[in-house]
Amino acid sequence: MVSVMKKYVYYFTEGNKSMKEVLGGKGANLAEMTRIRIPVPPGFTITTEACAYYSKSRKWPTELKGQVKKSLERLEKQMGSKLGDKQNPLFISVRSGAAASMPGMMDTILNLGMNDEAVKAVAAKSKNERFAWDSYRRFIQMFGDVVMGVDHKYFEELLEAAKEAKGFKYDTEFSANDLKKIVIAYKELVKKYAGKHFPQEPSEQLSMAINAVFGSWNNDRAITYRKLNNITGLLGTAVNIQAMVFGNMGETSGTGVCFTRDPATGKNEFYGEYLMNAQGEDVVAGIRTPLPIVELKKQMPKQYHELVKMRDMLEKHYKDMQDIEFTIQEGKLYILQTRNGKRTAHAAVRIAVDMVKEKLIDEKTALLRVPAQQLDQLLHKTLDNEGKKKVKLLAKGLPASPGAVVGKIVFHAEHAVEMAEKGEKVILVRTETSPEDIKGMNAAQGILTARGGMTSHAAVVARGMGKCCVSGVSDIKVKEDEKQLVIKELVLKEGDFITLDGGTGEVFHGKIPLVDPVLGGEFGVLMKWADKHRKLNVRTNADTPHDSKVARGFGAEGIGLCRTEHMFFEGDRIQAVREMILADNLEGRKKALAKLLPMQRSDFIGIFTEMKGLPVTIRLLDPPLHEFLPKEEEDIAELAKTMGVSKEKIKSKIEDLHEFNPMLGHRGCRLGIIFPEISEMQARAIFEAAADVKKKGITVKPEVMVPLVGIVKELELQKELIEKVAAEVMKEKKVKIDYMIGTMIEVPRAAITADEIAKVAEFFSFGTNDLTQMGLGLSRDDAGKFLPKYVDMGIYEKDPFQALDQQGVGELMKIAVAKGRKANKKLKLGICGEHGGEPSSVEFCHKIGLDYVSCSPYRVPIARLAAAQAVVRGK
Amino acid sequence: MVSVMKKYVYYFTEGNKSMKEVLGGKGANLAEMTRIRIPVPPGFTITTEACAYYSKSRKWPTELKGQVKKSLERLEKQMGSKLGDKQNPLFISVRSGAAASMPGMMDTILNLGMNDEAVKAVAAKSKNERFAWDSYRRFIQMFGDVVMGVDHKYFEELLEAAKEAKGFKYDTEFSANDLKKIVIAYKELVKKYAGKHFPQEPSEQLSMAINAVFGSWNNDRAITYRKLNNITGLLGTAVNIQAMVFGNMGETSGTGVCFTRDPATGKNEFYGEYLMNAQGEDVVAGIRTPLPIVELKKQMPKQYHELVKMRDMLEKHYKDMQDIEFTIQEGKLYILQTRNGKRTAHAAVRIAVDMVKEKLIDEKTALLRVPAQQLDQLLHKTLDNEGKKKVKLLAKGLPASPGAVVGKIVFHAEHAVEMAEKGEKVILVRTETSPEDIKGMNAAQGILTARGGMTSHAAVVARGMGKCCVSGVSDIKVKEDEKQLVIKELVLKEGDFITLDGGTGEVFHGKIPLVDPVLGGEFGVLMKWADKHRKLNVRTNADTPHDSKVARGFGAEGIGLCRTEHMFFEGDRIQAVREMILADNLEGRKKALAKLLPMQRSDFIGIFTEMKGLPVTIRLLDPPLHEFLPKEEEDIAELAKTMGVSKEKIKSKIEDLHEFNPMLGHRGCRLGIIFPEISEMQARAIFEAAADVKKKGITVKPEVMVPLVGIVKELELQKELIEKVAAEVMKEKKVKIDYMIGTMIEVPRAAITADEIAKVAEFFSFGTNDLTQMGLGLSRDDAGKFLPKYVDMGIYEKDPFQALDQQGVGELMKIAVAKGRKANKKLKLGICGEHGGEPSSVEFCHKIGLDYVSCSPYRVPIARLAAAQAVVRGK
Repeated sequence: MVSVMKKYVYYFTEGNKSMKEVLGGKGANLAEMTRIRIPVPPGFTITTEACAYYSKSRKWPTELKGQVKKSLERLEKQMGSKLGDKQNPLFISVRSGAAASMPGMMDTILNLGMNDEAVKAVAAKSKNERFAWDSYRRFIQMFGDVVMGVDHKYFEELLEAAKEAKGFKYDTEFSANDLKKIVIAYKELVKKYAGKHFPQEPSEQLSMAINAVFGSWNNDRAITYRKLNNITGLLGTAVNIQAMVFGNMGETSGTGVCFTRDPATGKNEFYGEYLMNAQGEDVVAGIRTPLPIVELKKQMPKQYHELVKMRDMLEKHYKDMQDIEFTIQEGKLYILQTRNGKRTAHAAVRIAVDMVKEKLIDEKTALLRVPAQQLDQLLHKTLDNEGKKKVKLLAKGLPASPGAVVGKIVFHAEHAVEMAEKGEKVILVRTETSPEDIKGMNAAQGILTARGGMTSHAAVVARGMGKCCVSGVSDIKVKEDEKQLVIKELVLKEGDFITLDGGTGEVFHGKIPLVDPVLGGEFGVLMKWADKHRKLNVRTNADTPHDSKVARGFGAEGIGLCRTEHMFFEGDRIQAVREMILADNLEGRKKALAKLLPMQRSDFIGIFTEMKGLPVTIRLLDPPLHEFLPKEEEDIAELAKTMGVSKEKIKSKIEDLHEFNPMLGHRGCRLGIIFPEISEMQARAIFEAAADVKKKGITVKPEVMVPLVGIVKELELQKELIEKVAAEVMKEKKVKIDYMIGTMIEVPRAAITADEIAKVAEFFSFGTNDLTQMGLGLSRDDAGKFLPKYVDMGIYEKDPFQALDQQGVGELMKIAVAKGRKANKKLKLGICGEHGGEPSSVEFCHKIGLDYVSCSPYRVPIARLAAAQAVVRGK
Repeated sequence: MVSVMKKYVYYFTEGNKSMKEVLGGKGANLAEMTRIRIPVPPGFTITTEACAYYSKSRKWPTELKGQVKKSLERLEKQMGSKLGDKQNPLFISVRSGAAASMPGMMDTILNLGMNDEAVKAVAAKSKNERFAWDSYRRFIQMFGDVVMGVDHKYFEELLEAAKEAKGFKYDTEFSANDLKKIVIAYKELVKKYAGKHFPQEPSEQLSMAINAVFGSWNNDRAITYRKLNNITGLLGTAVNIQAMVFGNMGETSGTGVCFTRDPATGKNEFYGEYLMNAQGEDVVAGIRTPLPIVELKKQMPKQYHELVKMRDMLEKHYKDMQDIEFTIQEGKLYILQTRNGKRTAHAAVRIAVDMVKEKLIDEKTALLRVPAQQLDQLLHKTLDNEGKKKVKLLAKGLPASPGAVVGKIVFHAEHAVEMAEKGEKVILVRTETSPEDIKGMNAAQGILTARGGMTSHAAVVARGMGKCCVSGVSDIKVKEDEKQLVIKELVLKEGDFITLDGGTGEVFHGKIPLVDPVLGGEFGVLMKWADKHRKLNVRTNADTPHDSKVARGFGAEGIGLCRTEHMFFEGDRIQAVREMILADNLEGRKKALAKLLPMQRSDFIGIFTEMKGLPVTIRLLDPPLHEFLPKEEEDIAELAKTMGVSKEKIKSKIEDLHEFNPMLGHRGCRLGIIFPEISEMQARAIFEAAADVKKKGITVKPEVMVPLVGIVKELELQKELIEKVAAEVMKEKKVKIDYMIGTMIEVPRAAITADEIAKVAEFFSFGTNDLTQMGLGLSRDDAGKFLPKYVDMGIYEKDPFQALDQQGVGELMKIAVAKGRKANKKLKLGICGEHGGEPSSVEFCHKIGLDYVSCSPYRVPIARLAAAQAVVRGK
C-alpha cells in the first residue's frame, strides 16, 4: 500500500480564512491575519481532522508527531527561543478552535513550556521575578485544571487563603516570594488530586495539552453547547499553538477584548474592555471587572491608536463586525484573535443595515447577517414607564443583553431548570456564571450576575440566547449557598420577584408590567429588503379582528388559518354550542346552530373588514365535541341548571363522547360529515359575512378550509355542501363572492393520496402540527415523558414540534406537493402549522416550492426574513 | 356533430357469455344458452349502459326507444303473437340482471302485456279461463307493487281475506270467477294507493316496467347488497325482456330451480325444487314449500330426463356448478336462466376438487373457485355431541347453510343489529326473510325461518354470508309482533337461547357447547394445490405454545408475531410487572425484571420447542405501561396491600402515566429506550431460551422485533443493546444462535424513511393495524362513532381495519418496500397486522412482493389459499 502523507499541521503562513473546516475559525483567522500582516504572534494549527482521528482511535495519526515537531522548530527559529530552553525559553499557548464559534466551551492552556528551570530564565531575562513566578503559578493552575483534571476550586481556595493570610485584596499584591510558595503548594495540590507529578518536560506538557484540547471537543459542556446551538456535522476542534505574549508583564502590559462596533446596540463605535497587567482569560472569565476601552486612550495612547487602526483593517477585511482579542506586552500590541462578533438582534439589524449604507456589503449579505430566529428579541416587550416609577430600583449593572423580564429569583442552574419545567418564570442570579450553568441560563427568563463585564461568560451567552442579562452589578452580593441576594441592607430570598431591564442594566424589586415593542428604523429597512427578495408569501394565524390587525402591522399578507372553534368558547356562545351537542336530534341541533350563526357571521365581518381584501383562510370546526363540555362536577351541575336538563343527561353525553385517542377521533371534517348542519351553518356565516362586507365596497377573499381530510371523498362531500350554501347566499344577497375551497393536509394518508385530493381542492395548507403527530406517531400532549430525552440522546436532532422534521414529515410534504401540483397545476400551497414561523422550516417550505407560510402574528417578521434568507442562500 | 348510433339493445341471438358487463349476467347467459341451443324463450336485453344513462339523467338515451321497438317486433314475429293483440297476445317478462349476481335484490315483472282485453284472448285461446285470470291477477299484483309502488301487503291482505271468505287453503282453489272479482278489487287497490289507474296499454306497461328495473339498481336493498358483497364499478343493471312461458297453466305446467350439484355439500347429485302449477317467483320467494326435484321424475319423467340432459349440457358448457331456473308450460320444458350457483365453502371445495378429477377444470381454476374468505366457514365450530344429548331438540327444518351457532332469539332485523352492536350473539328468527332483513342477517350469528326451502331468500343469502341457517321449519310458528317463537306448547321469548345446527337443520332449546372442526379430504387436496402455487409464506400470530401448535396444524410456516405483553398479564407475572412500574429507580425496576426473566424464558422455550426450527418473530414490549395498572378503586386498594405501598402512591403513578392519546404515547420501542433494562431482560429471556432449546438439539431461529420505530436511531439503540445481550448469553451458554433483528413498520415516518431503517434492520414486518390508525388518523377504539357511517356512505369502500386500505396504507407500504429493498437487498418483508389473513389484503401483499403474511391461527388456511389465488390471478 502506498501511503500518502497527510497534512495535519499548518503554519499560520500556510492558511487563510477559507479553511475554517480544517483549521477551525480561530486558526483560519490567525492564518488570515498573518497573511494580511496583522501583528499576530506566530504559531501553527493542528487540523480538525487530527482531532477527529483522535476522537475515534484515542491516538494520534502517525504523521502528526513529526509535523508538530517540524512546525515547533520553525516557530522556535522564528521567535529565536526554544521550548524548555534554560536561557531563552519559548512559551506557547494551546487553544481549541472549531469551525463554529463555541465561546468558553472548550479548553485553553497558556504559558506552556514553563517549569522549574524556565521560570528562572524568565526571571533573569525579564528582570521581573514576580512576573516569572506569577506566570508559572498561572500555568500550573490552568494545566492542572484543564489537562490533569484537578478542580480549579482547590487552586482558588489556596490562592484566597494566601491572600487572606497576607490581607491582600488583589492577586497583583503578591510578591515574587509569595508566588514561589504558592507554586510549591500548587505542585503538591496537583500531586494530591491528579495522583502524579506536574510534568516538567515541555514536550510532555505539549502532547498532554494537545490531547486535552482534542478531548475537550466531547466534554459535556461542549456537547450541550452544540446541541443548544444546533451545531452539527463538524469533525472536531483544531488546536492552535502560538507563541505566548504576556499581558501580565507589568504596568506597560495588558490585555483586552474589543468589538469593532457595539454588540448590544450595533452603533458604529469602538467598544471593548481591557485589564492592565493581566492575561486574556482574566477579562473573558469575568473574575475582575475590566475597564472600558476608551480608558486605554488615556493610559496608552499610541497603542490605543494602533488598536483602532487594526479595528478598521480587520472590519474592512472581514466585512463584518469583529470580536478581537489583543495583548500589549511591554508596550507592544499583538492581536491574538479575531472573529465575527456575537451581537444582539438589535445590533445585528443595525450593523447589517449600516454596512450596506457604508457599501461594505450588499443587501443580500445583510439579510443573512441577522439570524431570523433572533428577531424575536426585537419583538420582546419592554418595561412600562409608569410601572417603573412605582417599584424600587435596587441596583444598576451593565446592560449585557437587552429585553426586559420579570421573574422569581433562583440561585442554581439545576433549580432554574426544575422551576421552568413547572412553568415558573425565573431569573438566574449568580456571582458569575460558568459554562456549567448553560442549561439553567437557557431555562431562565433572564440572568443577573454580580461580577463580569459586557464580554463575560454570562453576557456573551445571554446575548447568543437572546435572553435579557444584567451583569457586573457590583452593589449586590450573591450568596448561592445560603440562597440569598444581598443588596446593602435588603436580603432577597429564592422565589422573590425581581425585574431586569437588559437595555439599561437596571434591577428592580418586584414586578413591573411589560409593554409591547415599537419597531421601525433599521428594522423597517431590513424588512423591506426581505420583502423584496423573498418568494414565499407570509400569512398569519389569527382568529380575531385584533390579532388580524396586529399581524398586518407585522406585515402579514393574509390569514392562513382562522380557527373558528376559538370563537365558540366566548361568552354565551359556549352555551349555544353545548345546546347543539346535547340536542337529541337534527331539529335540536339546527335550533342551537341558528343561535350561533349571527355570532360567527359578525366575527367574520370583523376579520374580513380588518384584512381589507387580503385572502382569509377559514377552517371549519376542528376539535372533538367533548372539548366543549364541562369536566368538573360543579360545572356540570351549573350547565344542567341553565340548560334545564338533568346532570345525568350531561354526564351520559360526556360518557358517550369520551374517546381513547381524541387526536385520532371524531373531529375535523368527520364532524361536518356526520353532522352536515354544522358545516352548513359555518359556510353560511362565512358567505353572509363576505356578502355584507363586499356590499360595503371592501374586497373579500374567503378560502374555506376543510380540516382533517384523509380521503378525497370527505372533501367532495363537504365541498358539495359548501358550494350549495355559497350559491344560496349569493342568490339571496344578490352578490358574487370570489371564494376557494381547499383542505388541510395533516393526515398522512392525505399527503400520500394528494393527487386524488388535488383534483377537488383549490388549495392545500399543510397542518404540520397534526401531520407531525400522526406521521411520527407522537402525541404532543404526551411526548413530554420521553421527547426531551430523545432530543438529549440525539434521536431527534431537534424537537419535531418546534422545527419541522424534514426527513420524515418533510418527505410527506414533498410527496404531497409533487402529487398535488401534478394533478392540479393551479393548486395553491401553504403551511399553517406552528413550523410556519420557524426559520429552518420556512427555508424548507421555500425549497419545496410552497406559495406561502402562515404563523402567529409575532413570528411574521421572522418568517419574512427567513423566507428572504432562503432565497439568498439558495443562489 | 356526427352522431354514431349506439347499440343499447341486443337480441338474445346477438350476444354471448363474455358480454356480462354490458348484458348483465342473466342476459349474457340467456344469449349464450340461445347460442348453444338450449330451449330458452326468445327475447332481448337492454344494456347496462342504458341503465347508467337513465340513472344519471332520469331519461332514456335517444336511440333506446327505437331499438326496443324493433326488437319487440322481431320477438313478436318469432313468437307469432303480438303484445296487446286481441286475438293472439304476447306476454313478456321484464327482469333485472347486473354483471354480478344480486339474488332477489332487484325487480322483476312477469306477465306483462296482460290487460282487460288480453285476459279474454288468453282465456279463449288457452281454453283455461282460470289460468287467464290468475295470470292477470298476478300481473296486477306484481306490477302494482314493483312498478307503481303499492305495498304488496295490501294485495296479500285482500287475497287472504278472499281465501278466508271462501274457506280455501291454497290460491289454486280459486275459480275463474273468484279471480275476476279479485282483479277488479286489485285495480281499485292500485287506483287508491298509487293515485292513478292501472295502465291498460301494453307499451305503457313496458316502458314503466323498464324504468322500474332501471330504478331498482339504486334502491336501498340493492345498495346495501352491493356494499355487503363489495360489488363496485358496475354501470347498472341490464333489463331482460323475454317471451313469457307459464308454469301455472294447470297440472301439466310447473316451475323450478335446480343446481347441477348439491350447493350445501358439493356432492355431484342433481339437486333442486319445483312447484307444479306455479310461477317461478313462488319457488324463490319461499312462500310455498316446494318439492325436491327427484319427485319430478315420478310426476313428469320425460321432462325430468330432458332437464337432466340440460343439466349436463350446461355444466359441461360453463364448467362450473349451475343454478338453473326452468318452467314447464303444458308439458314443454323451457330453461329460463342459468348462472354459476352459490354454494357453501364445503361445497365449493368439493366441487372444485371433484371437477379437477373429472377433468372439467385444472388446478389453478379450482383454486379460484373457492372464495378464500369462505374457508372460514369450514373452520367453523360444530356442536358437541355429548352436549347435544343434554338439551331438548325442538324441531327440525332444512339444513340451509352449515355451521353451528348459539344465540339469543331476536325477531326483527333492526333489533338484531342493535343487540349485535352491544356484543350480544343473536339468532334472527323470522317466518321468512326478505331483502329488507339483510342487515339483520349480517349482524346475527345465524338465521331460523319457519317457511322457505333450500333456495329461499334466507337460505341463499345465509350461504352467501357463510352464516348458519335453518329454514322451512314447518313445526314452528313465528309471531314477530308478539315477539314469540311457538313450538307446539312451548313459547320462547326474545332473549331466550337456542342452538342451531345448519348441517342437520336441527333447532335446540338452550345452549350446546361448540367444538373445533376437523379438516381433511378435499380441503387437504385444495390446500396442497394452494401451497404448490403460492409464493408468499404464511406465518401465524401466536403468543403461546398452544396457539403455535394450532397454527402449525393449519399449516403455519413460522410465527410472524409473538406479542410478549400477553405473557405479562398471566398469574403472578402481573405482580412483578406492577412492581417494576411502581419502582422508584433503576435498582427497583431491575429487581422486578429479574422475577420476570425466568417466566418469559420458559414461555419462549415452549414456543421455540413447538415451532421446531421454524422462524419465530418476537416483538419486544409494546403497550404503554399504564395498561398494566389497575383501574378500579378496589383493585388499587388490593394492589396497594399486596405491594405494601400506599394507595396514594399507586394512584399518583397512574396519574403520572395517564396519556391523552396513548396510541401515540410512551409505548413500543420508546419504552425500551427510556427503560433499556426492560429490553435487556426480554432479549436475555429470548436468547437464554434459544440456547436451552438449541442444546436439546432443536433448531431455533429467533427474530427479535423492535416495535414502533419511527426514526432509525431508535432501532440502532435497541439493536446495539440486543446484540450486546445476545453476545453475552452466547458466551455464557457457549452456544451460537442464529438470529435476526428487525422492526415493525407501523409509524408512517418509518415507511417514508424505510431506506434509512433498512440499513439497520434485517427484516420489516408491516404492523398494518397501527399503520392504518396513524396513516389514516383513525383511532380504532373510537372510530365506531363514525366509521360504520363512513362505510355506509361509501367514503371508505370497506372498513380499513378489516381490508387493507390499498390506496393509502398500501401506498405507504409500497414506498417502504421500494426504499427498503433498495437500501438492503437481503431485507425480509412481512405483514403481521390483522390484514394478513384477509384475502384482498393478502393479494396486495403478494403483488407488492412481500415474503410472508402472518395472521391468527384460524386464518392461516385462508391466507394460504388467498396467496395461491393471487399467483393464479396475477398470470
